[in-house]
Amino acid sequence: MTGQPVGATFEDFTLGQRILHAGARTIGEGDASLHTALTGARGLLNSSDMGAALCGLTRRPMDCWLTFNLAFGLTVREISAGAIANLGYAEVIFASPLFAGDTIRCESEVIGLRPTSAGDRGIVYVRSVCRKADGALVLSWIRWVMLPRRTRGVLEMITTLPTLQSHINEAKLTSQCHVQPADVARICELSGSTYLWDDYQPGMEITHALRMTVTETEHMSATRLCQNLAQVHYASSSSEDKPLVYGGHVISLCQALAREGLENMLHHMAIHSGSHLRPVVAGSILSARTEVVSKSPLPERVDLGVLRLRLLGFACPADSTESELVLELDCSAVIPRKQTTA
Amino acid sequence: MTGQPVGATFEDFTLGQRILHAGARTIGEGDASLHTALTGARGLLNSSDMGAALCGLTRRPMDCWLTFNLAFGLTVREISAGAIANLGYAEVIFASPLFAGDTIRCESEVIGLRPTSAGDRGIVYVRSVCRKADGALVLSWIRWVMLPRRTRGVLEMITTLPTLQSHINEAKLTSQCHVQPADVARICELSGSTYLWDDYQPGMEITHALRMTVTETEHMSATRLCQNLAQVHYASSSSEDKPLVYGGHVISLCQALAREGLENMLHHMAIHSGSHLRPVVAGSILSARTEVVSKSPLPERVDLGVLRLRLLGFACPADSTESELVLELDCSAVIPRKQTTA
Amino acid sequence: MTGQPVGATFEDFTLGQRILHAGARTIGEGDASLHTALTGARGLLNSSDMGAALCGLTRRPMDCWLTFNLAFGLTVREISAGAIANLGYAEVIFASPLFAGDTIRCESEVIGLRPTSAGDRGIVYVRSVCRKADGALVLSWIRWVMLPRRTRGVLEMITTLPTLQSHINEAKLTSQCHVQPADVARICELSGSTYLWDDYQPGMEITHALRMTVTETEHMSATRLCQNLAQVHYASSSSEDKPLVYGGHVISLCQALAREGLENMLHHMAIHSGSHLRPVVAGSILSARTEVVSKSPLPERVDLGVLRLRLLGFACPADSTESELVLELDCSAVIPRKQTTA
Repeated sequence: MTGQPVGATFEDFTLGQRILHAGARTIGEGDASLHTALTGARGLLNSSDMGAALCGLTRRPMDCWLTFNLAFGLTVREISAGAIANLGYAEVIFASPLFAGDTIRCESEVIGLRPTSAGDRGIVYVRSVCRKADGALVLSWIRWVMLPRRTRGVLEMITTLPTLQSHINEAKLTSQCHVQPADVARICELSGSTYLWDDYQPGMEITHALRMTVTETEHMSATRLCQNLAQVHYASSSSEDKPLVYGGHVISLCQALAREGLENMLHHMAIHSGSHLRPVVAGSILSARTEVVSKSPLPERVDLGVLRLRLLGFACPADSTESELVLELDCSAVIPRKQTTA
Repeated sequence: MTGQPVGATFEDFTLGQRILHAGARTIGEGDASLHTALTGARGLLNSSDMGAALCGLTRRPMDCWLTFNLAFGLTVREISAGAIANLGYAEVIFASPLFAGDTIRCESEVIGLRPTSAGDRGIVYVRSVCRKADGALVLSWIRWVMLPRRTRGVLEMITTLPTLQSHINEAKLTSQCHVQPADVARICELSGSTYLWDDYQPGMEITHALRMTVTETEHMSATRLCQNLAQVHYASSSSEDKPLVYGGHVISLCQALAREGLENMLHHMAIHSGSHLRPVVAGSILSARTEVVSKSPLPERVDLGVLRLRLLGFACPADSTESELVLELDCSAVIPRKQTTA
Repeated sequence: MTGQPVGATFEDFTLGQRILHAGARTIGEGDASLHTALTGARGLLNSSDMGAALCGLTRRPMDCWLTFNLAFGLTVREISAGAIANLGYAEVIFASPLFAGDTIRCESEVIGLRPTSAGDRGIVYVRSVCRKADGALVLSWIRWVMLPRRTRGVLEMITTLPTLQSHINEAKLTSQCHVQPADVARICELSGSTYLWDDYQPGMEITHALRMTVTETEHMSATRLCQNLAQVHYASSSSEDKPLVYGGHVISLCQALAREGLENMLHHMAIHSGSHLRPVVAGSILSARTEVVSKSPLPERVDLGVLRLRLLGFACPADSTESELVLELDCSAVIPRKQTTA
């Protein structure tokens, strides 16, 4: 008997297959502290109950990207523990915030299958959902991963690719935050920036000044915190190689770097599409740039607006002086609007 | 005046000596989060209140090996801060689970003394107990450590070796978990495995697939978290050497690796015997294997059974391709049995 | 648009300028766990509710140096994100303990400005205060930092240096701890030392035995935990250099090393003056020594006394065998006195 699973292979999946993932996780305050220590996250909404209260929440929720990684981590065992690469994301919707004490579980459905032309690998598309114990939806997302095949050669199967929306319909974007007119100024005072939804314009580029070295223990700890136990992140197969940094940690770090210039951004609402363009290893220095793609009001809300942001993450390997593009995320985020106080 | 203690030496101990250890520790949720981030622990019982509830507990307890290390850490100052090596364990009994908010203290008694033949060291055997503030027993254990001597030469003392039980009587093994017949299937669904006590057979071997690199900050952080301040783990005496990884962290990591294949295991009940066979340093890749030694029912209980498991931990140093045996633990663990629903 | 701020320069400050710092932080138990894991802190008052109760507190407060760094971290964005060096501290007063659940904010006032003679830098002196959401003062401190100038040359400004008190008036030192006569013995039993205020004498030197290697992830994590995002701590500008360890982490580590020999010290009350004498990089081994400068009763209190302590922190770089002085802190700390039980 071997300790199962060593990771599913392409052949283990069938179209329409439903997976109730093993594992549930009760989120604690300690998880939030670790996320801060491992990424430098400093969101207005997440850092203090004071910030959360100004936005209509009873207490500080978890950072979106901790939520994303905790949920993602719960799906690794059955889907991607043995994956060669996590290729991309689509239709990621942040449905409700996660608070200390909440317990989450995940389910997935296989929505696409494609053997690669070389015949030794295959790509599996899954739609996953994360719910609280009371059934409340926390997060839903599509991702596709490259998996090895046990057998090599042509497969007698029809490639089925899912129809992926190029972007999520705005009507699906929601926020549980509410900002009273009198609190807008207080939010700006707390965030240290007066830039609100009204001040951002399509085409603006924000070069985030901060750069951060990804370190060995940090990336493994961030990955273990989310109980993501994909082998590639913890030990390489040869002594020349380094373990690969879990892509979700690269996202968390880049989002933390991208805070300056977006101080009043409350939380992310969606990832329309995203991809990891190159693997990252410990010792690399990460940096980030944000492009404002478009802006739109949040339907039926005068207090909040939506910014569509293209986040680019770059990594400069330890032995290099050139940064390479490693991450591209097309996201929507919510930010307070100017309000006239009656 | 020097900051005391630099670590007791062999001469500081007398047979029958009782030590009330300095220090008390209130355990917090953050300790559990750190344990997860530092080891990848993902026990069914410890990861969520949902898992704990299915097993009859009001909320998730600390992982056994965090409990073990927190208790052990409290005994280091007076016993092993200056130890050359922590040689072995016997009669380790997990008496009750530890929850966030609990406060623990430890006491020890010297039960054996043996000077080494070379005349420059000695081995001290101690029995330690860890109790909550209300007196409830959490953990009791025997360990023996090699200590330096201040003076060299033949000692006018009689070697006294304790009588160590080769294994703990089953009547002493307890579990506070209770599984209702209707919950067995739900436990399997949550753990991702249908393997119950009934399915394991003596002689089975489980080669756990996951391997994990021990990193520098991680092992020091895990050791500091338990306020274990033995010098050897934090700085070596020469620049060629590396600090030694605290053996308790090696246990925690190997137990986390050993989860796959033992998904429904609720908690450990005892270590019958254990030893660290070689020191481990940062950069080594750990792996684990479990042998099912025997199985027995839990007296007067139809819901739970006991598995006796031999855990072998291996480390492959950074500059090597060969794994060496570094840890051997003869443990008993509790796991749900199949139950007929009336 | 660039993600602001990349860090203020000398020209951005004017004498008397008041800054309400961006950011608020709700402190959680997880922060305390991380502080323990990152520094090895093991204060009697902070490690358990039992220890806190013996000293008249309802539950364990945060370690002083975590409090110091959390508060300091909140002032970095507007003051020292782009600093060349954090030169020194004065008039640091610990006014009240911080508990899990407390939310803090910080304000600063510019109290001194001095362009350097070389004409390319300037030194800014600020007095900062940290308060809880209810207005209670937690910490106040003066520090001075060296900042770059955007333009080079002679400035038409008058150098204004603040009048710094060489030591804080004893009347300003306070403690919220209260020790009943019957609890003195219990405190000694819990701390593992019978050394009380009465036993320390001016001129005593305590060479703390423990040494600890500063590691890469650890120092960055400790700095991120406090949301201190000064660039120099996370990535160096050339591949030959290493990121500099945040000075506040050096203080935390040295204070943790300095615990042995000062087991009954309850908390720090003040830093009269302090300076970082040399930068520290990952891989260095830290050690500490304490000199008892003087002792005084705590006004109107028979249960507690004040020790004035000079803490010296040393670092031995990874490629060296010689330790260099890197930290000097002139502090006052509070410790129980012997009491006659009626």
